[in-house]
Amino acid sequence: MSAIEKVGIGIVGCGYWGPNLLRNFAELDDACVRGVCDLSPKRLAVVQRRYPGVALFTSCEEMLRMPGLDAVCVVTPVKTHFKLAKAALDAGKHVFVEKPIASNVREVRQLMDLAAKRQRVLMVDHTFIYTGAVRRIKELVTRGELGEIHYYDSTRVNLGLFQHDVNVVWDLAIHDLAIMEFVFGKQPRAVSATGMSHLAGQPENIAFLTIFYDGNFVAHLNLNWLAPVKVRRTLIGGSRKMIVYDDIEPSEKLKIYDRGIFATPSQESIYQMLISYRTGDVWVPKLDTTEALAIEARHFLDCIAGKAKPLSGGEAGLTTVKILEAASKSMKARGKLVKLS
Amino acid sequence: MSAIEKVGIGIVGCGYWGPNLLRNFAELDDACVRGVCDLSPKRLAVVQRRYPGVALFTSCEEMLRMPGLDAVCVVTPVKTHFKLAKAALDAGKHVFVEKPIASNVREVRQLMDLAAKRQRVLMVDHTFIYTGAVRRIKELVTRGELGEIHYYDSTRVNLGLFQHDVNVVWDLAIHDLAIMEFVFGKQPRAVSATGMSHLAGQPENIAFLTIFYDGNFVAHLNLNWLAPVKVRRTLIGGSRKMIVYDDIEPSEKLKIYDRGIFATPSQESIYQMLISYRTGDVWVPKLDTTEALAIEARHFLDCIAGKAKPLSGGEAGLTTVKILEAASKSMKARGKLVKLS
Amino acid sequence: MSAIEKVGIGIVGCGYWGPNLLRNFAELDDACVRGVCDLSPKRLAVVQRRYPGVALFTSCEEMLRMPGLDAVCVVTPVKTHFKLAKAALDAGKHVFVEKPIASNVREVRQLMDLAAKRQRVLMVDHTFIYTGAVRRIKELVTRGELGEIHYYDSTRVNLGLFQHDVNVVWDLAIHDLAIMEFVFGKQPRAVSATGMSHLAGQPENIAFLTIFYDGNFVAHLNLNWLAPVKVRRTLIGGSRKMIVYDDIEPSEKLKIYDRGIFATPSQESIYQMLISYRTGDVWVPKLDTTEALAIEARHFLDCIAGKAKPLSGGEAGLTTVKILEAASKSMKARGKLVKLS
Amino acid sequence: MSAIEKVGIGIVGCGYWGPNLLRNFAELDDACVRGVCDLSPKRLAVVQRRYPGVALFTSCEEMLRMPGLDAVCVVTPVKTHFKLAKAALDAGKHVFVEKPIASNVREVRQLMDLAAKRQRVLMVDHTFIYTGAVRRIKELVTRGELGEIHYYDSTRVNLGLFQHDVNVVWDLAIHDLAIMEFVFGKQPRAVSATGMSHLAGQPENIAFLTIFYDGNFVAHLNLNWLAPVKVRRTLIGGSRKMIVYDDIEPSEKLKIYDRGIFATPSQESIYQMLISYRTGDVWVPKLDTTEALAIEARHFLDCIAGKAKPLSGGEAGLTTVKILEAASKSMKARGKLVKLS
Repeated sequence: MSAIEKVGIGIVGCGYWGPNLLRNFAELDDACVRGVCDLSPKRLAVVQRRYPGVALFTSCEEMLRMPGLDAVCVVTPVKTHFKLAKAALDAGKHVFVEKPIASNVREVRQLMDLAAKRQRVLMVDHTFIYTGAVRRIKELVTRGELGEIHYYDSTRVNLGLFQHDVNVVWDLAIHDLAIMEFVFGKQPRAVSATGMSHLAGQPENIAFLTIFYDGNFVAHLNLNWLAPVKVRRTLIGGSRKMIVYDDIEPSEKLKIYDRGIFATPSQESIYQMLISYRTGDVWVPKLDTTEALAIEARHFLDCIAGKAKPLSGGEAGLTTVKILEAASKSMKARGKLVKLS
Repeated sequence: MSAIEKVGIGIVGCGYWGPNLLRNFAELDDACVRGVCDLSPKRLAVVQRRYPGVALFTSCEEMLRMPGLDAVCVVTPVKTHFKLAKAALDAGKHVFVEKPIASNVREVRQLMDLAAKRQRVLMVDHTFIYTGAVRRIKELVTRGELGEIHYYDSTRVNLGLFQHDVNVVWDLAIHDLAIMEFVFGKQPRAVSATGMSHLAGQPENIAFLTIFYDGNFVAHLNLNWLAPVKVRRTLIGGSRKMIVYDDIEPSEKLKIYDRGIFATPSQESIYQMLISYRTGDVWVPKLDTTEALAIEARHFLDCIAGKAKPLSGGEAGLTTVKILEAASKSMKARGKLVKLS
Repeated sequence: MSAIEKVGIGIVGCGYWGPNLLRNFAELDDACVRGVCDLSPKRLAVVQRRYPGVALFTSCEEMLRMPGLDAVCVVTPVKTHFKLAKAALDAGKHVFVEKPIASNVREVRQLMDLAAKRQRVLMVDHTFIYTGAVRRIKELVTRGELGEIHYYDSTRVNLGLFQHDVNVVWDLAIHDLAIMEFVFGKQPRAVSATGMSHLAGQPENIAFLTIFYDGNFVAHLNLNWLAPVKVRRTLIGGSRKMIVYDDIEPSEKLKIYDRGIFATPSQESIYQMLISYRTGDVWVPKLDTTEALAIEARHFLDCIAGKAKPLSGGEAGLTTVKILEAASKSMKARGKLVKLS
Repeated sequence: MSAIEKVGIGIVGCGYWGPNLLRNFAELDDACVRGVCDLSPKRLAVVQRRYPGVALFTSCEEMLRMPGLDAVCVVTPVKTHFKLAKAALDAGKHVFVEKPIASNVREVRQLMDLAAKRQRVLMVDHTFIYTGAVRRIKELVTRGELGEIHYYDSTRVNLGLFQHDVNVVWDLAIHDLAIMEFVFGKQPRAVSATGMSHLAGQPENIAFLTIFYDGNFVAHLNLNWLAPVKVRRTLIGGSRKMIVYDDIEPSEKLKIYDRGIFATPSQESIYQMLISYRTGDVWVPKLDTTEALAIEARHFLDCIAGKAKPLSGGEAGLTTVKILEAASKSMKARGKLVKLS
């Protein structure tokens, strides 16, 4: 493949996550990172040392005008996503936006409309759905291995990086929301959230979300920036099997429990049920350990080439932002149910 | 001490927990279990084989009339607590009731009034507060070791025994509510709870409670009868130190983390705070491993002898039942805040 | 079954382990514990309270003369096993001896000869081989699931009960030796052992055994009474699969790893091998959780009734004592190989 | 500091470990990596891309002739260490050699003599002794916190990289030997080792070492390339306290147990000892998490500048190679004690 056929990539934002995107796109044969933009000259200097051929910018508009740029990655604080992604789409670029895709539902819809109108790929970086663990969970759920899904219950806590501009829900819940959207493909119906700030004037640093879906599927997220230990543990309960997904575990991230409960009508009374327990083997599947971001970057190029549809496109981004918005609203009203249309 | 001075004990209910009370009271020198009452002749036969000297009854009223009975332990299903405890108090007996003390706030108040009027001890079996772990936590909190308490966050899940008459909150949350009442001694102000039943016609088997207190102390409980694994893990976050209390751990149940976060005003702007992290050593104290029930039975006798006031008396029972009642109400309204007077 | 048909059991020694045997035999329908013998009147008093119908003795000879006694359990210190088991066999009783069966190979052979001559069952209490975990391991090994067995590597350490009369090998290694004898059924060929005493005048409290078998199967035991933590962990390596058996784990005691290594001749050179790794799923089988001693007591009765041959008979006892003897000898010579005939 | 004052570094060998040395020396202000040598042009190309200013060589002799080279790191297979280190010393360079320092005791002594004669620094890369965990252990041992040291017992196993030229002892034991040399500073007196090869014609892939020291201090190493799980766990037992050092643990690598055992003369008999147990708190110190290699590279420069003496110099290398040599010899004789002069 000649250089002229490579997809030209520009990256806006080179703080914590941007360099990972840079590295992964740089390693793909049919992509070429042509430009990187950041407000900090110091960060740009680091980029230059590692990737001398990349053009550097402190203004995104300027980068958008450089020749050979086909796609733009927006890896900046959430509140700037909309403006930057919009500018890129307006300039005819494909766009890959850091999660959450935007600050509110209205912004997401605008980006989706714009991408549709300009026929450009709009993809949001829901990294976790590209991991071996989550792909395996989706496979198990889709094949019906778990039976009917009862609940998704996640604990995502640690002594975290306090953020000043968003609360803990926008920072941590987004991971679970992206996973749920991908694995279950269900529309949430309502949210009840509670939370608390323990530093005056700061956003909530601890939060608890309950998300209701049709039927009796329910999700719960426990999010905390002020925990003594790091926990990344999700229980997924099905009528036939259950999963414990522990992302901290180095090698046994996924355990599938052949356990459940079932009710049979009592012979004595039609109003009474006999409840029985079933406990069988546990199975720890070997997972693909390819770096999620490598798979995701590859997938973005495939979408640009028209060979795939984004697994995490505008719709997925919209579903997650809907819940984030509703959760913040419910949290202010201390658990009041917020319905989602 | 002559036999005549021993406190005569009667036990109502010899199912799962009753035999433990029987064994513990039988081992105390200044108590004598004189009567045991149960509806099941089979259970009574087991008692007789082990404790030939104990009188057996299938009617509680009858047992209450036997001579030499000073105190009665009520170890029956929750909905019968009130009636049985009331009968015992009416008969002038000291009463030790299984948790939760009664089915609703009204009943608890009636028992408290009756006990006060008859000058009898009313104690509720909040077993956990007599464990070495919880007593140590209270000590640490009381001494101010943790600083200001930010949150109590507990996960109490397993493939549990479904109960037909009470939901998972009444079955599992009561443990945490008893611990919190004992450790913090604070009055809850409001509750938001969500939950779900996954078996038609059965009470909720999964539930999430958020309990608000004055200031920014918040508690959260994750309760589940349908989990693939057993978890009994509580995080307690303070401004100076934090605790992880894992009751499944055989020997290291309590870990105290010298970790926290603190905010200092930024020099650049009075509106901005600089947030710093502090991580220090972890300390795992050796705990007293005496059986909690042995300490509790001893304490009940001391209360009868006027040497102590119940650490888990009517007031403690009332606080916990208030929250259970409010949580069930909030759960029906899918998270709606229920205020506590 | 009428009382007259029950197997009459006598138990010698009611210290730490004896009461467990008593309880398990007492629960079998076709056995009846008729006599218990111990030097301590205090221990006998405890027995009497729990089992009023049992005759009590401070002399074993006396107990052996009581009518209705078919079998005797010897649950005393090792050095007394031979004398007591011999007396019981001489008196025509079936014998169940605590592990290790005797103090040296000569004694074991004498007991075996005597049992054969008197046509009585001689069984040694190799409790672990009756657990669900070890029975499952044997099944896997026997079915060839692990391929060729490469090694058995066990760590059995804790802050243990120092014993004055035997070293740590006789106290702890016996468990692994019994398991290996049962699971692999192989004759050991040589032993190299090292160890150390850290208390003047006391037997070795830390020891390391390497046991050689035919082919390249090797076993290693790490034994320690002076460890800060309790570890009961065994790795079993096969050419096709490997097992981690962790007896401390409450529910996931056995993990079967689909992992291995294989060598293929290099194409470049016939002298060089290409070594490849294989890592697949992990599988945690559900195990039978019946108390091992209940199964073992049942098995002893079946052997007496002629329905079974002891899984842990004199031969098994002999194999283990051979190794214990050789290990103590090797340890004195600091690792010198001691061959086993 | 001007460029002219920087210590010029050359690195021989850029396989698995070499790039880490390259990166760490490149990040030091007063060092400058001037040359890198490797037989593989592909590896050199990788170096060039990252560090365009470094001169590349396929011959070590050639690199040694380049101007501005003060020190050489030898990061090649063990059997080549001696020849390359000797050449570097002969050329007047300071030398930093990968562990183990050489293939046998004779070689180590020659290097030591040469370094002394040429007045050059000879340092061996005992990386672990520069970790926060091991430095803390040394501190605790030196301060006498553990009391008298009874044993060092390490398990270092995994499904490892089979090596064709050295056995598992030379590959894995070296880490523990380096740690012990550093922490205890004691001379070993004798070694008994056993092991086995499970692939025809290959060196031993499983090995067990017992190392005897003066007094009753004993060390034991369990080494295995064929284990289903990765274990890096060391117990250090002292008369006052004990340590569990688990290098796999992400954050709690070191646990200090206030546990022990002590013997007091029995009042009844001067020949009998009463043994008592002591179990107290566990303490998990916060450790310095600076990369060990960064500290080690810094230390090498300080030694060159005459500000420090190597913590892992020729003597340390000699002690470890003595044991490796003795262990291989003992292993061939199946555990036969090999004395060390």
